[in-house]
Amino acid sequence: MTTEITIGEYLLQQLHQHGVRHIFGVPGDFVLKFMTLIEQSELELINTCDEQGAGFAADAYARVQGLAAVCVTYGVGGLKIANTTAQGFAELSPVVVISGAPGIEERLRHPLIHHKVREFDTQKKVFEELTVASTVLDNPDTALEEIDRVLAAALRFKRPVYIEIPRDMVMVPGRRYHTPNHPKAQSDPETLQAAIKEALTLINNAKQPVILAGEEIHRFRLQDVLQELIRKTNIPVAATILGKSVVDEDEPAYLGIYQGGIGQQNVRAYVESSDCIIILGVMMTDMNLGIYTARLERERCIHAFSEKLSIGYHVYEDVQFTDFMNALATAELSARELHCPPNCKLLPTYKVQDPNAPVTAERLFARLNTFLGKDTIVIADVGDALFGAADFSVHRSAAFLSPAYYASLGFAVPAAIGVQKAQPQLRPLVLVGDGAFQMTGIELSTAARFGCNPIVILLNNGGYVTERYIIDGSFNDILPWNYSRLPELLGKGRGFLVKTEGELEVALQEAALHTESFCILEVQLGKMDASAALKRVASGLV
Amino acid sequence: MTTEITIGEYLLQQLHQHGVRHIFGVPGDFVLKFMTLIEQSELELINTCDEQGAGFAADAYARVQGLAAVCVTYGVGGLKIANTTAQGFAELSPVVVISGAPGIEERLRHPLIHHKVREFDTQKKVFEELTVASTVLDNPDTALEEIDRVLAAALRFKRPVYIEIPRDMVMVPGRRYHTPNHPKAQSDPETLQAAIKEALTLINNAKQPVILAGEEIHRFRLQDVLQELIRKTNIPVAATILGKSVVDEDEPAYLGIYQGGIGQQNVRAYVESSDCIIILGVMMTDMNLGIYTARLERERCIHAFSEKLSIGYHVYEDVQFTDFMNALATAELSARELHCPPNCKLLPTYKVQDPNAPVTAERLFARLNTFLGKDTIVIADVGDALFGAADFSVHRSAAFLSPAYYASLGFAVPAAIGVQKAQPQLRPLVLVGDGAFQMTGIELSTAARFGCNPIVILLNNGGYVTERYIIDGSFNDILPWNYSRLPELLGKGRGFLVKTEGELEVALQEAALHTESFCILEVQLGKMDASAALKRVASGLV
Repeated sequence: MTTEITIGEYLLQQLHQHGVRHIFGVPGDFVLKFMTLIEQSELELINTCDEQGAGFAADAYARVQGLAAVCVTYGVGGLKIANTTAQGFAELSPVVVISGAPGIEERLRHPLIHHKVREFDTQKKVFEELTVASTVLDNPDTALEEIDRVLAAALRFKRPVYIEIPRDMVMVPGRRYHTPNHPKAQSDPETLQAAIKEALTLINNAKQPVILAGEEIHRFRLQDVLQELIRKTNIPVAATILGKSVVDEDEPAYLGIYQGGIGQQNVRAYVESSDCIIILGVMMTDMNLGIYTARLERERCIHAFSEKLSIGYHVYEDVQFTDFMNALATAELSARELHCPPNCKLLPTYKVQDPNAPVTAERLFARLNTFLGKDTIVIADVGDALFGAADFSVHRSAAFLSPAYYASLGFAVPAAIGVQKAQPQLRPLVLVGDGAFQMTGIELSTAARFGCNPIVILLNNGGYVTERYIIDGSFNDILPWNYSRLPELLGKGRGFLVKTEGELEVALQEAALHTESFCILEVQLGKMDASAALKRVASGLV
Repeated sequence: MTTEITIGEYLLQQLHQHGVRHIFGVPGDFVLKFMTLIEQSELELINTCDEQGAGFAADAYARVQGLAAVCVTYGVGGLKIANTTAQGFAELSPVVVISGAPGIEERLRHPLIHHKVREFDTQKKVFEELTVASTVLDNPDTALEEIDRVLAAALRFKRPVYIEIPRDMVMVPGRRYHTPNHPKAQSDPETLQAAIKEALTLINNAKQPVILAGEEIHRFRLQDVLQELIRKTNIPVAATILGKSVVDEDEPAYLGIYQGGIGQQNVRAYVESSDCIIILGVMMTDMNLGIYTARLERERCIHAFSEKLSIGYHVYEDVQFTDFMNALATAELSARELHCPPNCKLLPTYKVQDPNAPVTAERLFARLNTFLGKDTIVIADVGDALFGAADFSVHRSAAFLSPAYYASLGFAVPAAIGVQKAQPQLRPLVLVGDGAFQMTGIELSTAARFGCNPIVILLNNGGYVTERYIIDGSFNDILPWNYSRLPELLGKGRGFLVKTEGELEVALQEAALHTESFCILEVQLGKMDASAALKRVASGLV
């Protein structure tokens, strides 16, 4: 069977088939032909200011949509997103990196073409370290199969992949000798049955079982399965920081975020005293484990995630995480009384007492918690933006996004663009420190250009406050910008300077009304004013 | 022999010894201890907004100073400068990449530490592709020798190197068993003599010899040797675009920039009709060769650069470029009459005729050419900023900087910081397009913070004009910013909006007087208004 589709068109067609509707990127001469194809396709190209912004936006899009694509030119484009791709690898975000490249013909004739680093495959070698599959589409006989293979890897492993398309191959028809074939990983049925049987016994016999839910619930689209499990059994559930909001935080059985010794103490006490801790979709990272203060005794744990299923001290091989989750949700688990969890809603209720009182970090987070609506998605950058927001109660599943493990500063603003392109019905509330904002905040230009309207809360501590609590020095200082005047530079958006609680009220009210573009609230905080959570984390990071 | 110096101190001491006085970087927890050491040392840390800015600034510093260092944290810092390091590799810029990293101890205990991508050596593997030497300082017994080895490679090959320093090794004393030993590459004396003899004969017998000088003259610090050669012989000299200003352009024997068919036609005619073309320090890249339009007949060429020495169709092995240059400059070359070169100063003299006339690209470059003083260093970003500025006459050696081969957009603004830290007596004139400015222009924040005062000429064409001449589409559009209002955001600097020739005069005069901080002149040009050079280049890039 042959087909007349070009290699470039096939790639776009397959992305579309897997739910991709937007591609983030920056043009460059080696990718212009493919960009022209995008323009003619059903997919929309979102040009960012810098490739880094495109990389972060795609990472966020992938987390929300299940797959994303970023499209850049060779060398000067591709290597700018090594870091954002690394974050996708570390945190299971399936981004398809598409890079233009010199044509196969011209490579033979000319060894020193601009944008080339060392060898023609140097960029590919770099991305082999940062992805689960990679290919150069240099052969029409295999290109379509290669596209299938690489996209299937992204979808299966929920991690980035790399596709390089030489510019003289974009319009070449690919030959098809095969029927697309995406072998699905399968569990061994008997092992799965044995594992479920053991888990059932442990859970049903437990006095105080608890679920600890993590980021993979979201990545593998298992939120509904988890909710079914919780509602059926009334087992209380905590989430990891990286998995925050994988369970709807309005669920009666929801306890809060578990982070060992640096998180909330009543959540810790409840989880660690449980006689059956059901850990679902959690990567055992330092941040998830409260910088290794977590005390999760293995003999009392059932731990299922994409890489392993273990119960107590033994491991069940050949059991897929998704299969285990589905089997558990439909297994004969006893329904319990809704065990009234300890009061973990630690953020106090908020009421302005003195409009002239300076805003503090603690009061700011309390106020923002009451600002969250059903259509809000919180996107927290690294640092106190994350630590402080961990105690928010968000009002829908998957309404909280943050790179809480790889922790690349500057994620949040471009991520808001990715999120809103995938879910235009949500309005992002971005929390970002001044240090991170100076890295990528200028991508509000992209937000403005493409009709996104995030509300950006800029926590201005005059530098890197998290690091000040680890080791301080002048290296933690930054230039104080007039952040609220950014709209004057961009010619779009609304800016607010907030020093007092009264100003905070006015700014939030106006931001809620101003929906046609972004709003930025520069909230001035003391240099060392940080959430209690930050101080606990920093002491663990020294 | 033992010594009590710590590994961190030794690294700083050696950098200082090799002329490094500034380190560019962004802090992060894994590098804070080393940052503290920098703060206590004789070196100054220049914090940029984003790691990319630090990478570009270091690249520029290395080109001017001979060696540079950029210091970042693990993963989220290091991988952000993969691209700037790649540029250093491609264009021979010796930047020492110093990355903090998790401690050796904690790596053993905890497999999933934040900022980690895949394996603990993933970042090192990436940098092995982008550098000529790399090391992880994980052993006090070898760390000092490793530092010596890696720095020696940077100095010898003029290319980036990578040094990773786990945070628990910074303060550990290194043991010294050796005397520093930097074996110097040496020429075979007899081969060198034979090569010089053949070159002498060819040059002295030639009717119209010409020198084509390239970027390596600058990298290997051979400007004085080249000048001696020119003044002694009066042989006319052209430069490549990547090597622009390796020879003082006020030299009577200077012809201009040779770029084959896309450069100036009288320079091309003179060079290509020569019966002895002495090509010194030139990499045969597409840009240097005018996108392969150059016609340099090998039988009439002597071509010496760091990788090879060839005369006509044969090659002399084991001859170092520096040795050949020195031997040539002192060889018995005949002195000639100063052959009056063709008039290659193509930029017309400039006089405002109508102050209300809109500024055009052609008139802008002509005006700027007259603005260049003895203390100006021109830094051109990629695109028309470079193509248009290629015809400038700069008034000192090494007063023109541009990544004319690797061509990473966004280089110029952060480069100005690197240049001015190395040479505070010079004032950078930065030429940058609006697309490139949206990538890294925000680093004017860093310029302002650290007392740099570049004059930035922003060529605002409303998008990527070079690409419009290759393939146009909406992907070449960008959001129009009010660029001249950037000083209001940063709280520093002066901004000017320039639409007419009269406004250009006023702005340049004020910029010349305002020396305490940066000035930005947004020059509004027509969407397709570009230099003739750009149009010639673009037609070669399709």
